[in-house]
Amino acid sequence: MTRSFDIAVIGATGSVGESLVQLLEERILPVGSLHLLAGSESVGQSLAFRGKTLRVRPLESFDFGSVQLAFFAAGAAVTREYAERVSAAGCALIDLAAALPSSLAPRVVPEVNAQVLAGLAAPYRLTSPSAPAVAVALVLAALRPQLQVKHLTLTACMAVSSRGREGVSELARQTAELLNARPLEPRLFDRQIAFNLLAQVDTPDATGHGALERRLAGELKELLEAPSLAVSATCVQAPVFFGDSLSLSLLANAAVDLPAVCAALQAAPGIEYVEPGDYPTAVGDALGQDEVYVGRVRGGLDEPAELNLWIASDNARKGAALNAVQLAELLIKHYL
Amino acid sequence: MTRSFDIAVIGATGSVGESLVQLLEERILPVGSLHLLAGSESVGQSLAFRGKTLRVRPLESFDFGSVQLAFFAAGAAVTREYAERVSAAGCALIDLAAALPSSLAPRVVPEVNAQVLAGLAAPYRLTSPSAPAVAVALVLAALRPQLQVKHLTLTACMAVSSRGREGVSELARQTAELLNARPLEPRLFDRQIAFNLLAQVDTPDATGHGALERRLAGELKELLEAPSLAVSATCVQAPVFFGDSLSLSLLANAAVDLPAVCAALQAAPGIEYVEPGDYPTAVGDALGQDEVYVGRVRGGLDEPAELNLWIASDNARKGAALNAVQLAELLIKHYL
Repeated sequence: MTRSFDIAVIGATGSVGESLVQLLEERILPVGSLHLLAGSESVGQSLAFRGKTLRVRPLESFDFGSVQLAFFAAGAAVTREYAERVSAAGCALIDLAAALPSSLAPRVVPEVNAQVLAGLAAPYRLTSPSAPAVAVALVLAALRPQLQVKHLTLTACMAVSSRGREGVSELARQTAELLNARPLEPRLFDRQIAFNLLAQVDTPDATGHGALERRLAGELKELLEAPSLAVSATCVQAPVFFGDSLSLSLLANAAVDLPAVCAALQAAPGIEYVEPGDYPTAVGDALGQDEVYVGRVRGGLDEPAELNLWIASDNARKGAALNAVQLAELLIKHYL
Repeated sequence: MTRSFDIAVIGATGSVGESLVQLLEERILPVGSLHLLAGSESVGQSLAFRGKTLRVRPLESFDFGSVQLAFFAAGAAVTREYAERVSAAGCALIDLAAALPSSLAPRVVPEVNAQVLAGLAAPYRLTSPSAPAVAVALVLAALRPQLQVKHLTLTACMAVSSRGREGVSELARQTAELLNARPLEPRLFDRQIAFNLLAQVDTPDATGHGALERRLAGELKELLEAPSLAVSATCVQAPVFFGDSLSLSLLANAAVDLPAVCAALQAAPGIEYVEPGDYPTAVGDALGQDEVYVGRVRGGLDEPAELNLWIASDNARKGAALNAVQLAELLIKHYL
């Protein structure tokens, strides 16, 4: 007999929430009842789940004692407001908004640091890291036996869907305006995103670093248990609807054994290795895929301890919803 | 009395050739007669210059003894075929295709290494470096008094116009096909470039590095007279019509003095420094501008010797035609 679990999805009508519901349907996770919750503006909407139509109900009045697991995909403020109530009800919490400090809700990618769960006690609280951190950590974890990374330089070219549906419709609208020679009106983004690259995805702090750039650096160190890793992160908004493209350059503490690196990437679960000559793209390869695609793997031109590679990944899939669902599977299998 | 110079432009009908002719018209360079030359397929076309219509004439039968200076913007094979004839006729040559080795035609950016010309003798031969190399070298040259760079990591997101007019029309066509839900037919690029990023701009060699990536690394070392500089370069094809966006991360051999770096960039000729908070983009700032735009200047999150910045520059302007014209001005002023 298989136990089934009652689950709540908060922020079910957002793009990540919708991907979550779709993955819960596709994957073997034994879902008993599924509750879709959102703020008052989305209550009354509905989503399909296993042949039924589920209505979105108000988060405010929900009894978290009636479910064993809750996914929070509604933004940091919502997670912060409800986290205590969820835990007090004995319900496990998986946050996709990085609302809580690591001490309260550690960042976990199952393939990278699943062992962290063994040190926790119920009620469980986990954070699913940002999409680029998940992809980069997966790759670096696969290479742990091959190289110890000292310094990591990442330029993350992020899809507009990282800003939700509004990002997608803004790129479509701006593109159509430009192609039809109509005046351009930026709304969600602060300037033209169509046929352009924006050098930041949020407002930098006084030191010039953006919130996501800081978050990424912190997440990578935590996931890889590498507090002394130095991270340089630049987050760029690209005129791409779906899928992140990451240009990654590493400095290891010794010369890189390239054939061993390629073999390790080829063998790693969750990674699709693309041979030199060919290369993966976000749109052509990663979209809709659970795997993170890695290509353009090459050493340094001048520096033997350098490793360069290119990662394409579906930011809504492994980057967000899939990793959260995998965390739920891990909790359910071993801890709940 | 001002001497005037008779000039030939080879590859005048390409997009760089056309920018060259436009700049020759705009700038004070004392042009006597201007000869537009091209292969047989373009002969008979014409361009406007100072109120006159100039016909494109055949390169094959041109007498280089009739001009003092020739710009080669027609591809490496053409430069290689004609270089000897040009020099034998006593004509100075400025190559935009990196056809000749540095020993025969050194790479020069006037603001960076103009002193190289003093070591040459007539007939002069110079190479105008690749667009990203010009932009990065300008920035690093401005910072020479502030920091000695050991390792440089560059992700260069390049406009489709770096592939000439065909690149521009391919992006426009693919975008329209996708927006109108018609089947996509990649032609010039090997796959979908619209709403996508391609991880390479040419075919990599057996070590995985692309020709432009190798060229960039070599050009930066030569321009900055820094043979021990380690360069990691990733050239990416972006769905942007005009203007390159460069994400640059440097490791210096000592802690970076950020206020001094910002002050140096603010004071440097040819550079437009953008304050933190704001940031430059290729389309919004750099297009049509002679200056290279630099923003998002920030130190390392973890590494005091790290410096990160973002460069937006018009790849057809300072990156190609303008630098070549400035080389001509330098030759004319001091050497011809």
